[in-house]
Amino acid sequence: MHNLTVIKIGGNVIDNPDALKQFLTSFAQIRDHKILIHGGGKVATQVADKLGVPTTMVDGRRITDQPMLDVVTMVYGGLVNKQIVAKLQALEVNAIGLTGADASTVLAKKRAVGEIDYGFVGDIVEVDSGQIQYMLRQKLVPVFAPLTYDEEGNLLNTNADTMASAIAVDMAHKNTVTLVYCFEKKGVLSEPANDDSVITSLTPDLYETHKAAGVINKGMIPKLDNAFNALRNGVTKVIICHADQVVQAVTQGGAGTTLTLS
Amino acid sequence: MHNLTVIKIGGNVIDNPDALKQFLTSFAQIRDHKILIHGGGKVATQVADKLGVPTTMVDGRRITDQPMLDVVTMVYGGLVNKQIVAKLQALEVNAIGLTGADASTVLAKKRAVGEIDYGFVGDIVEVDSGQIQYMLRQKLVPVFAPLTYDEEGNLLNTNADTMASAIAVDMAHKNTVTLVYCFEKKGVLSEPANDDSVITSLTPDLYETHKAAGVINKGMIPKLDNAFNALRNGVTKVIICHADQVVQAVTQGGAGTTLTLS
Repeated sequence: MHNLTVIKIGGNVIDNPDALKQFLTSFAQIRDHKILIHGGGKVATQVADKLGVPTTMVDGRRITDQPMLDVVTMVYGGLVNKQIVAKLQALEVNAIGLTGADASTVLAKKRAVGEIDYGFVGDIVEVDSGQIQYMLRQKLVPVFAPLTYDEEGNLLNTNADTMASAIAVDMAHKNTVTLVYCFEKKGVLSEPANDDSVITSLTPDLYETHKAAGVINKGMIPKLDNAFNALRNGVTKVIICHADQVVQAVTQGGAGTTLTLS
Repeated sequence: MHNLTVIKIGGNVIDNPDALKQFLTSFAQIRDHKILIHGGGKVATQVADKLGVPTTMVDGRRITDQPMLDVVTMVYGGLVNKQIVAKLQALEVNAIGLTGADASTVLAKKRAVGEIDYGFVGDIVEVDSGQIQYMLRQKLVPVFAPLTYDEEGNLLNTNADTMASAIAVDMAHKNTVTLVYCFEKKGVLSEPANDDSVITSLTPDLYETHKAAGVINKGMIPKLDNAFNALRNGVTKVIICHADQVVQAVTQGGAGTTLTLS
């Protein structure tokens, strides 16, 4: 079993050129097989504004009608993804930028319209880990934009946290997988106002306790649900940490919050 | 030696959804190993206009300053490329969308500033046919956007005709390559005003004669120079035809203009 590190970076890194540069330099130092999944960042909203495409968010999720799908396809799949790939190449990382449509790596289906019509948003159906595995064997480093596709030929906007989790789980059949969620804090905090109150080890019981007490809330909940779900489905380790600490977290286990099942 | 068909489609196909759909349906029917290279089309200019990025063309070539580079990265590398990939997946073609930066497939260098500063425009240095070959072995169909990269981590806007020719030449070391340039006419014409006056077979001598007489001029000249250059460097056959005739041209040799060295 190869060691494989799957890392997700969010908009806060992508929106800050210095932070992104520092992260990519760190990422280049990780020696194991690795996969990067990036979020969108604020550029999509800025480009949409300039193009006259209104942005509608419901519970922190973007409503993706056809004009907005075109914007996220341009920004996530083009601008952000290809800039990361070119920068990684300059760091001697042989990156290959992908959406889920490329090499049929992540198939999804358009979310059914319920109370809210999210538009062209994808729920993941299947990861083709075989195609990803052969890229790793070729010493390529897959870099995923948060876009998938369906069998009708539509591109679909997809949550990057969920995409990272789904890829990590599927790759765990043939690899020892560490999944890392990088975000703007040093880890999951026991005191939200205190950046140094990092919970170094989080079990499902402790998660429930903190959630009930309101210490863990909002956007952290779907992130942690994704993370525990990955652990329950074969991923060996999940770490939540600041993008600056990714090397320390992955190579020495000495940063961020490590999730364990017991 | 595997048969490999390298096809370039231009903006006229990309700008017309029905023409693109029809072309992709034809492309899906080609049984050999195949590679698609697409141009940009008018969408880049439209998006640039809306974003307030001025478009400057010199001799039909786009001046690519940093804001324009971002636009073409979004439009060529994101919107156009990923829409083609998703549509091909729905046609059961396992496409993988690439720029030259992805998997270090096409390395370039930024064009030196002469009388004109073209900006972030790339002249091709090297094609990594090894990476492309292993994708073909995996039954993937590479779809290239006209973007390359340099060793400093810049993306570079690159002429799609040249990129098609460079890829075809490098792949000719290990494949029997047919290179097809699809455009808006049925082939190279002996009477520019008569769409049916297709020259079925064009040699370098006949090309020089028609060029001297002004029958072949403007944008056809760099296209044909690229095409003859490919033939002189190992490509077995070059065909110039209408996008609607690509299957006929490739599988039956019964359409368009076929270039030969003698």
